[in-house]
Amino acid sequence: MATQRILDFLATRRPSGPCLVVDLDVVRDNFRAFEKAMPESKIYYAVKANPAPEILRLLASMGSSFDTASVAEVEMAMDAGAPAERISFGNTIKKERDIARAFALGIRLFAVDSVEEVEKIARAAPGARVFCRVLTDGEGAEWPLSRKFGCVPAMAVDVLRQAKALGLDAYGVSFHVGSQQVDLSAWDRALADAKMVFAKLAEEGITLGMVNMGGGFPTRYLRDVPAAQAYGQAIFEALSKHFGNNIPETIIEPGRGMVGNAGVIKSEVVLISKKADNDNLRWVFLDIGKFGGLAETMDEAIRYPIVTERDADEKSPCVLAGPTCDSADVMYEKTPYPLPLSLTIGDEVLIEGTGAYTTTYSSVAFNGFEPLRSYVI
Amino acid sequence: MATQRILDFLATRRPSGPCLVVDLDVVRDNFRAFEKAMPESKIYYAVKANPAPEILRLLASMGSSFDTASVAEVEMAMDAGAPAERISFGNTIKKERDIARAFALGIRLFAVDSVEEVEKIARAAPGARVFCRVLTDGEGAEWPLSRKFGCVPAMAVDVLRQAKALGLDAYGVSFHVGSQQVDLSAWDRALADAKMVFAKLAEEGITLGMVNMGGGFPTRYLRDVPAAQAYGQAIFEALSKHFGNNIPETIIEPGRGMVGNAGVIKSEVVLISKKADNDNLRWVFLDIGKFGGLAETMDEAIRYPIVTERDADEKSPCVLAGPTCDSADVMYEKTPYPLPLSLTIGDEVLIEGTGAYTTTYSSVAFNGFEPLRSYVI
Repeated sequence: MATQRILDFLATRRPSGPCLVVDLDVVRDNFRAFEKAMPESKIYYAVKANPAPEILRLLASMGSSFDTASVAEVEMAMDAGAPAERISFGNTIKKERDIARAFALGIRLFAVDSVEEVEKIARAAPGARVFCRVLTDGEGAEWPLSRKFGCVPAMAVDVLRQAKALGLDAYGVSFHVGSQQVDLSAWDRALADAKMVFAKLAEEGITLGMVNMGGGFPTRYLRDVPAAQAYGQAIFEALSKHFGNNIPETIIEPGRGMVGNAGVIKSEVVLISKKADNDNLRWVFLDIGKFGGLAETMDEAIRYPIVTERDADEKSPCVLAGPTCDSADVMYEKTPYPLPLSLTIGDEVLIEGTGAYTTTYSSVAFNGFEPLRSYVI
Repeated sequence: MATQRILDFLATRRPSGPCLVVDLDVVRDNFRAFEKAMPESKIYYAVKANPAPEILRLLASMGSSFDTASVAEVEMAMDAGAPAERISFGNTIKKERDIARAFALGIRLFAVDSVEEVEKIARAAPGARVFCRVLTDGEGAEWPLSRKFGCVPAMAVDVLRQAKALGLDAYGVSFHVGSQQVDLSAWDRALADAKMVFAKLAEEGITLGMVNMGGGFPTRYLRDVPAAQAYGQAIFEALSKHFGNNIPETIIEPGRGMVGNAGVIKSEVVLISKKADNDNLRWVFLDIGKFGGLAETMDEAIRYPIVTERDADEKSPCVLAGPTCDSADVMYEKTPYPLPLSLTIGDEVLIEGTGAYTTTYSSVAFNGFEPLRSYVI
């Protein structure tokens, strides 16, 4: 939801063109809610969700750790005041020279999901800690993770054994239940797999110490989602069930859950038209689309709340599209979006829950449009 | 295909990181081939395909006109030396203030597909020429255009009648058969629709003078496509069939057809791994993916030729994925890509036919990765 601070900013500054406004007060509240809900877990903010320096500085000052996807993100986190020991290089796909650069910067915690990656780390970051990502089924997530990251749990045992053999610190297991996960039992299933890896390696004398439970904590889009407290409770119960009195160190990596609901995109209606006179369906074209920051509408995966000043008026279904000459730049077509019949060219609309995965997804100059501007207040 | 000039550039300069290299000699040849195949048509290069200044300057110097999608693209074309009268504002979705800015720069040719857009142009660009885009079915295109642009032919009659009534020059009709169109009869069907609009308006005393046949001219990806000559011949026959001795002025807007085969992306294999020990499918991760310039692999729509130095070796199917922490960043998974069994982490690969729709699609900083670099030689 747009906070009063965001509404005041837009009313006062009247920025031209589409833009994202992020309210740091919401980020602060979210961080505290995660701390409260999961007091035993270390919070690694997923920098890729929104790397705005103001957000990174705030979280660094509150004691957050950081999950990074590249050397550039490592440097951003350090520039924001995070010491190297609070930064994880969480991408399982890394060039060996980037591992070496991160190691030189002091990074000692790396994600892997294959023996091949372990070998690179053993060469470029000798002695570092590694955790192996296991595949989860992603069921229940609105933005499922497919099979790109992780390996089956049996293979994770091999990967961590090899890490140990090559002089690395075989440190733990990670999983990701899928972004915007609303099924609480997903964590239970993943923790069962993690425990299996712990147990198999313990039989060989290798003691793991950490479970990285990833992200997936949802932000509020159109439906209510269980609040952070409920997630914390469910996850604590699953940890106790599988690990008993021997609960390992745990890490969480909220991204969307930390900043998603802190941001609102202001956009303008560029055109409202029909394709035929007898067509009931209106096409509404905004000055932002799939290539300008709303990439997560791909396959209509994420359905953002859209607020207009005419929401009290009667609504009818619209196809919602972006401003580029690309026919793929359509946000909602299979499931049209209800918008006020009185909506008019030139109207401003607010697209809520857009604090995560918008600015950096934006294309650099597609159709000559500049990337999404962002204001952090 | 990678030209010798591109191969020499890569061998000599050895640029680090993924990059696109475009050979201007190929662009020059393509422009001449279009001129030769369709000597009666004016060529409006679709700037959005690749707005590199070197490409725009070359084409401007050869006499090309330019199809633009935004005021920024209008300015790029003018900076490259194109006079305003050789520039069309071809986006049917324009803010009224952008129409006014383009008009102030001298632009007098605008695309529309609705009465609402006509009204904006009548206010912001009085007296300008407009052409109305009609919907085509896009059948046979590898990257179909859906219904985002254009209106049904009957509505185009209303739109152009209204343009005339508001003091604009009702100038013509446009269509786009879909990008990478390989079915030559698509132009015939679209020209039949165009002729219908001409005839209806002629009955009312409104004489249209131009047909904009859009783009859709394919570049060579994995399959051979009919060469420009065959397209020219088929289109000329369709024009004669529908317009007889009264063939109007015609415009074509090649984008992919002008620059697609002029560019090659150099990438590096970051990781090759499996998800389980008994898995036959390898996952090959490159340092470029869907968010780094290969957006057109969305839904596996476009299948680029990939060349390695080990192509003489036995091949097996691979899932091909990008380097980001985004599970959607997978190029080919439903139809795996055959790559050499001997392929090794650190190998360079060439992704051919990537001169169009790559650099500007690239995300601005997703996961901290910089946008795709480009060298025009």
